[in-house]
Amino acid sequence: MKETMRDKRVENSVAAHSSTDCKERLVVVKVGGAIVEDEARLSALLSAFSAIEGRKVLVHGGGRRATKVAAALGIDTRMVGGRRVTDADMLEVVTMVYGGLVNKNIVARLQASGIDAIGLTGADMDVIRSHRRPPVEVALPAADGSHSEPTVVDYGFVGDVDKVNADALATLLDAGITPVLAPLTHDGRGNILNTNADTIAATAAKALAARYDVTLIYTFEKAGVLRDPDDDSSVIPTITRSDFQRYVADGTIAGGMIPKVENALSAVDAGVARVIITRANAIDGRHGTVISK
Amino acid sequence: MKETMRDKRVENSVAAHSSTDCKERLVVVKVGGAIVEDEARLSALLSAFSAIEGRKVLVHGGGRRATKVAAALGIDTRMVGGRRVTDADMLEVVTMVYGGLVNKNIVARLQASGIDAIGLTGADMDVIRSHRRPPVEVALPAADGSHSEPTVVDYGFVGDVDKVNADALATLLDAGITPVLAPLTHDGRGNILNTNADTIAATAAKALAARYDVTLIYTFEKAGVLRDPDDDSSVIPTITRSDFQRYVADGTIAGGMIPKVENALSAVDAGVARVIITRANAIDGRHGTVISK
Repeated sequence: MKETMRDKRVENSVAAHSSTDCKERLVVVKVGGAIVEDEARLSALLSAFSAIEGRKVLVHGGGRRATKVAAALGIDTRMVGGRRVTDADMLEVVTMVYGGLVNKNIVARLQASGIDAIGLTGADMDVIRSHRRPPVEVALPAADGSHSEPTVVDYGFVGDVDKVNADALATLLDAGITPVLAPLTHDGRGNILNTNADTIAATAAKALAARYDVTLIYTFEKAGVLRDPDDDSSVIPTITRSDFQRYVADGTIAGGMIPKVENALSAVDAGVARVIITRANAIDGRHGTVISK
Repeated sequence: MKETMRDKRVENSVAAHSSTDCKERLVVVKVGGAIVEDEARLSALLSAFSAIEGRKVLVHGGGRRATKVAAALGIDTRMVGGRRVTDADMLEVVTMVYGGLVNKNIVARLQASGIDAIGLTGADMDVIRSHRRPPVEVALPAADGSHSEPTVVDYGFVGDVDKVNADALATLLDAGITPVLAPLTHDGRGNILNTNADTIAATAAKALAARYDVTLIYTFEKAGVLRDPDDDSSVIPTITRSDFQRYVADGTIAGGMIPKVENALSAVDAGVARVIITRANAIDGRHGTVISK
C-alpha cells in the first residue's frame, strides 16, 4: 500500500514539473521565522533553494527575531490569535528586522551561492500595495476556554494586500533575478505596513499564476500533511479538493491543518498550479504533500 | 561683482544641464544621517529629489539613527577619526537601520510622491561588491593634540569597494526605476559590510559616468563652498582644479573643505561631469558650488 502511494507520488511529481500551456515554470518558496532563526536549518534551506532551477521567489518571515530585538529594545510583543499587534514602535522593529537584518543577510548569502537575488519589501518597485487593517471583531477564547468572546482588536500597522505588481516581479524574474520578499507592504501614502509572510507568498503566487506555471511551496516543521501526526513517513502524497473533503470527514485532516490546506486549495482555485507542503530541507518538488486540482 | 558671479553661475548651471556626448543625464544625490534624522529636512529633501526629472539615484546615510538604536540595545558606538568601528553587533544594527528602517521608509515615501523607487544594498543584484578592510595604521592626534600618533585600527566589518555593477543599475534606471542606495555592500561570500555613504555615492557616480552625463550632488549643512564661512551668501559658484589650487593657496578653502573638494575633483577626473556641493533643500542644480573640469 505504501509503495503504491510512493509510486503515485512520484508520477504526480513528474507531472507537476511539466509546464501547462507552455508557461515558464516559477517556484515560490515560503520560509518561516523559526528556520530563519536557526543557522543550520537556514543554511540547508538556502542551499536547497539555490539548487532550484529557473525562476524562483523566496518569501521569508522573521517574527521570532523581531520579538527578540523588540525585547532587547524594551518593546513588548503583543499577539492576538497568533497575529502580531504592530504599534508604531513594533513597526520600526519589523521594518528593521524583516526589511534589513533578515532580508539582506539572505540576499548576501544567495549571492554567494551564485543566485542573483534582490531583496524587496512591498514598497520597492511598488511590488505589493496594501491598506491598513481597520479594527476588527475577533472571536477569542474566554479565559476559562468555555466559549469564544467577540472582541474588537486593532492590529495597528498591519496591511491587508490590495494589489501585487506582477509586471514588476516578472521583469526581474525574466532578467534572471530572484526576488526575496520580506513580509512588509506599503499603503501608497508613504507608510510601511506589516503583512503576514504566508499571505505575501499566496498573493504573489496567485498574481504570477497568469503568466507562469506556479508551484507554491510552504515549508513546514513536518514532512507534509500526515495521516498519522506522529509518523513522518505517513505523508499524504496528493490532496485534491475532493480528497480534502473526504479527509476532513474521516478526521485524517483536523485542527490547524484544515485552514492550511484550505488556503492551499484557494491558491489552486486562483490559478496556482500546485501547492506543496513540505520540510524546509526538502523543497525539490519531490517531497511533501502536493495540493492541486 | 556679486551680480557678475551670479550670472556666470547661471550660465554654468545651464551649461551643466546640456548633456555631453548625447548621453542621457543622471543625477546622483547623497544625503547624510543628520537630514535622515530630521523629519522636516528629510521631507524637504524628498520633495526636491522627487522634482528632479529623468534618471536619478539617492544615496543615504543613517549613522545618527544607528547610534541611537545601538544605544537602546546597549551596544557602544566607537568612532575612530570620524569613522564607525563595526563589530558583529554593530553590523547587525547598521544592517537593520540602513537597510531596513531608513531605506524602506524613504522608498515608501518616494513611492507616495510618484517615484518608482527601489531600495538596494550592495548585495541586491550584486550592485556593489567590497572586501573587508584589513587593520590599518591611522595617524590619530595624541591626547594633548601636540602630534599625530600612528595606531593600528581594525574597523571591523567595513567594506572597501571593489566593483560597482553599473549594468544592473542602468537596467533599473533605463526602466524608469529610481535606486535608493543604503551604505551597505557585500563581499560576495555571504557577508554584508558597512561602507561610507559618501564613498557609495562617489563610486556609483564614477561607474555610471561611462554611460550617463552624471551630476553628483553632495548635500551639505551650508549653501556650498563659501568664501566667508559665516556668510551663506558668499557661495563660490564654480571651482575647477586650477581655481581649487588658487583658493587653497590664498586660504579661501581650508580645513575640512580641502578633502571634500579634492574628492569632488577626483570624481570629475574619473568622468563625472560635475559635482555640486549644496544644501539638502537646494538640489535643483541651480544652487551651491559646481565643481567641474
